[in-house]
Amino acid sequence: MMTDFGLADPYVGVMKGVIADIAPECAIIDLTHEIQPQNILQGSFLLSATFRQFPEGTIFLCVIDPGVGTSRRPVLVSAWNAFFIGPDNGLFGFLIEAPDKQVTHLTNPAFFRHPVSHTFHGRDIFAPVAAHLAHLGPRILPELGETRDTLVDIEGRLPVKTTDGIEGTVVHIDRFGNLITNIPASRLTPLMNAGPGKIRITFRNRVLTLLKTFAEAPPHEPCTLIGSTSHLEIFVRNANAKEILKADIGEKVYVRKYHP
Amino acid sequence: MMTDFGLADPYVGVMKGVIADIAPECAIIDLTHEIQPQNILQGSFLLSATFRQFPEGTIFLCVIDPGVGTSRRPVLVSAWNAFFIGPDNGLFGFLIEAPDKQVTHLTNPAFFRHPVSHTFHGRDIFAPVAAHLAHLGPRILPELGETRDTLVDIEGRLPVKTTDGIEGTVVHIDRFGNLITNIPASRLTPLMNAGPGKIRITFRNRVLTLLKTFAEAPPHEPCTLIGSTSHLEIFVRNANAKEILKADIGEKVYVRKYHP
Amino acid sequence: MMTDFGLADPYVGVMKGVIADIAPECAIIDLTHEIQPQNILQGSFLLSATFRQFPEGTIFLCVIDPGVGTSRRPVLVSAWNAFFIGPDNGLFGFLIEAPDKQVTHLTNPAFFRHPVSHTFHGRDIFAPVAAHLAHLGPRILPELGETRDTLVDIEGRLPVKTTDGIEGTVVHIDRFGNLITNIPASRLTPLMNAGPGKIRITFRNRVLTLLKTFAEAPPHEPCTLIGSTSHLEIFVRNANAKEILKADIGEKVYVRKYHP
Repeated sequence: MMTDFGLADPYVGVMKGVIADIAPECAIIDLTHEIQPQNILQGSFLLSATFRQFPEGTIFLCVIDPGVGTSRRPVLVSAWNAFFIGPDNGLFGFLIEAPDKQVTHLTNPAFFRHPVSHTFHGRDIFAPVAAHLAHLGPRILPELGETRDTLVDIEGRLPVKTTDGIEGTVVHIDRFGNLITNIPASRLTPLMNAGPGKIRITFRNRVLTLLKTFAEAPPHEPCTLIGSTSHLEIFVRNANAKEILKADIGEKVYVRKYHP
Repeated sequence: MMTDFGLADPYVGVMKGVIADIAPECAIIDLTHEIQPQNILQGSFLLSATFRQFPEGTIFLCVIDPGVGTSRRPVLVSAWNAFFIGPDNGLFGFLIEAPDKQVTHLTNPAFFRHPVSHTFHGRDIFAPVAAHLAHLGPRILPELGETRDTLVDIEGRLPVKTTDGIEGTVVHIDRFGNLITNIPASRLTPLMNAGPGKIRITFRNRVLTLLKTFAEAPPHEPCTLIGSTSHLEIFVRNANAKEILKADIGEKVYVRKYHP
Repeated sequence: MMTDFGLADPYVGVMKGVIADIAPECAIIDLTHEIQPQNILQGSFLLSATFRQFPEGTIFLCVIDPGVGTSRRPVLVSAWNAFFIGPDNGLFGFLIEAPDKQVTHLTNPAFFRHPVSHTFHGRDIFAPVAAHLAHLGPRILPELGETRDTLVDIEGRLPVKTTDGIEGTVVHIDRFGNLITNIPASRLTPLMNAGPGKIRITFRNRVLTLLKTFAEAPPHEPCTLIGSTSHLEIFVRNANAKEILKADIGEKVYVRKYHP
């Protein structure tokens, strides 16, 4: 499960109660419930960067849903040997390129909890559908609704090409203050050609060194590495880069080819 | 489980360790552990508003216990096809009206963890009793202690009747800043007679519109709706009503019949 | 599980995904994930004070790992009918005195997740080893790596002997603001001889009374008791000692024999 509900409210617990009623045998793992309220991009990034660590067949129940009660569509996406259930508002934009994906618009009320509220589809639509799928298996997929061809994408999901490199964005800041960007390791490699000396990484016009481990960094100096999610991160060794740089989600990071 | 222990301390984990030792097969769901420290009313409200979402036979282990170590009674309440275990300090006041409820004063030390401390009955009394009940089933109920007739109630649990309507209280503020009151939908209906135009909802002498969904609200304007817990909520669309109104738990909300 | 990862990031969820892939039947309990970032002493204290509440054979997967990617050793300690897996950086210092303990240096990559990153051994080494142990049982111990004789200790783990008593340290502050010290009940008893009147407890030159329950304390006055972890705690009744005293982790508490 991933939501922006936090753990101080009973919303996540209630969704688990609904699941336990339908599929008591179903094991539940919390990915995180502390996505910034309504920050679809952050949720989408963290899901895309971590879902491959889970067993095949995992059902990802994801609710970041500022448009609940409006016309945005509830969907189930079957892709990469996994299932993704939630609102079609960009959260699953990273699945657009998935081969052989199948998108189902969830319209069959037989799999919902009733009455369906205007304010909490996590409890009334997404959790019950996920639980029925866990309990009965993929054979129910054709009954859940109509198959669709498209998924809503979200701005800022991928770094942008510039004339001499790429412009990335800080999409998440972790508890240690590390600034995690949407620049995947795979986008750095072609820029690097013959080694790390060939690219220049800048943040607010400051050049940052690219290292392999936290421990290599000199003290107090913001540096970068490819973090555990295989994306470029800005960090300060044994310190909090967010506080030291007074940085925030949304800031830009540039990677350019370097011609000394 | 519901407590005011938070998740930064090991108290909740230790209770789960005690449960796992007695009833390793028992599945545990966290309702929330971030009830404000010692706020019995908030805990009682959230439990009363959500327990029906859980499967029949669920055991609700609830510890908000400012009087631990004093004469307040540890109890088990059997009501509404569920079991509620915790201190009898008002937390279970909403069960007073439950038909066919059975209250047991937990006095049999055979079901406790020993030695019983003066400071942590969650670990030493409530968790072990819940685990034994999960493991052995309701046949142990007569052995747990004596049956009692009464439950302690708590002030502020229900809205108060006024000459021309009702006075409610903000009992919870959720992560999105929505102010959730103790006014149930069922108390609004009789006041509304022929439609929502017939009542007036006020908060700090400000009249608030009653809507059906978050999305209907004009921007920046505090409005109300019946939220997912079936209680009246004050919200600001895509914004944080708590911050905008600088509101807090305990503030009053009035619903009056309207004579234009 | 115990980590300093917090719950806002997906790190804990990812570790659970890795475990579910190897040992889907394995039940997981969170002790806490909100150890202060990189505070090995706090983690070591909370683990040592609570592990005995868990069932025999429990695997404690603990990741507070400021030296990840450096030469600090990943270990498994078998002691007190339990297993402890994590970095050998002092976190398991309290096991040094355990009789019949067995320390294994985790070197066999067959039990790791690949590729092993430089930044997240929780996911790549510790979680997979814990999951394989849960799934296959202790018969795999000899295959995990070489047996070692020593464990790294950590400063501040135990109170220090002074000429007339002991000097302890505040190692944890709980959600209620109680200041929990590293002074175990067992170190107070020999000092007390003939009763609590025979010792004097001081914090910042202020003498604090030793009581049995929170409820005995006069209002507004900082007092002490032996808390639920069997260690000396400073508290203010129905109030927050941390805020009232503006206290922090690391402060000293003195217990001296009293000669009136």
